Amino acid sequence: MNRPQPVERMVEIIKKLPGVGPKMAERLSYHILKMSQGEVDRLLDSIQKARQTMKSCSVCYNLSEYDPCTLCSDSIRDHSTICIVETPQDLIAVSKVKEYKGLYFVLGGALSPLDAVGPDDIRIDKLIKRLKSDSITEVIIATDTDSKGEITAVYLAEIIKKLGVKVTRLGYGLPVGGDIEYADEVTISRAIAGRKEM
Amino acid sequence: MNRPQPVERMVEIIKKLPGVGPKMAERLSYHILKMSQGEVDRLLDSIQKARQTMKSCSVCYNLSEYDPCTLCSDSIRDHSTICIVETPQDLIAVSKVKEYKGLYFVLGGALSPLDAVGPDDIRIDKLIKRLKSDSITEVIIATDTDSKGEITAVYLAEIIKKLGVKVTRLGYGLPVGGDIEYADEVTISRAIAGRKEM
Repeated sequence: MNRPQPVERMVEIIKKLPGVGPKMAERLSYHILKMSQGEVDRLLDSIQKARQTMKSCSVCYNLSEYDPCTLCSDSIRDHSTICIVETPQDLIAVSKVKEYKGLYFVLGGALSPLDAVGPDDIRIDKLIKRLKSDSITEVIIATDTDSKGEITAVYLAEIIKKLGVKVTRLGYGLPVGGDIEYADEVTISRAIAGRKEM
Repeated sequence: MNRPQPVERMVEIIKKLPGVGPKMAERLSYHILKMSQGEVDRLLDSIQKARQTMKSCSVCYNLSEYDPCTLCSDSIRDHSTICIVETPQDLIAVSKVKEYKGLYFVLGGALSPLDAVGPDDIRIDKLIKRLKSDSITEVIIATDTDSKGEITAVYLAEIIKKLGVKVTRLGYGLPVGGDIEYADEVTISRAIAGRKEM
């Protein structure tokens, strides 16, 4: 016997979500079938409400209930510096750092030649347009430190420098609170290169 | 900055699903926000349709579009033997074994003294009622082989034997296609006890 068709359909659709394998999709589906109607209503409602209320800020492309978002419309922040991140989640992580008072720009991904993600697939044109129109003096690149993020950072730095804007990249080194035993070679090598006199 | 409230609510609700941690819930939520309206509609519709159409079979408690389910209403199957499983997913796994022609009974869980799951929390009373009313001559216990499944099997065997019904448990041993190197001690010990002359 196979799974009944309505369950099979639900499993197939849930399986397409990121990080959800076939076993996990099955587990989630059967769990959803066992949930109370109230619980299912809350789940579906939270998805629908979030989809309805969240929009992309037309300045920085952060997800927000407002456009421009609360960061872009905050006159106290430093509007001459922007930090480039790949995703809205990355923006939230950086925004927890109180010392940073500038604005942001969400690329919506990273360049990835292997996955055929080129400059036209992320918001590079919109970034250039913003750099040209707003009076921005420094761009901090905070793309991921994996190969895609690195390629993107190098590509962006090249373009942005041509516009006469200062470009920096987040510093490399050991993560704070980490055990050196578990740090990889490349990170340690970068930490040595970036060592500071005590 | 924290996550906007509608996203936060979605993350909190998704986080409660089994096997979904905080990071996974965030990833799923932001993915859902990026999905096309058509994709979201298909996801929500598949959940609602499955919830509406799937019911518990009143004989074996399998999830089915029909009541009694197609297995219980199949007159060709052997109605004198039932296989006890914990969940509808387990039933599907056993039903792939073509040699087994009997019926099923879905307990809806396993006894777990540590989690305060007792005989009244799973369908033991319904099982006894069925064993008393239907003319069943053999019960095969196919609960999981973890400690909860084991406790449940021992408990059930005791009760069922008193009803004068033959009780068996699925055999232990090495899983087919497995590497002995990765088999645990207890499994190997069971496989030795159950060794067959060649």
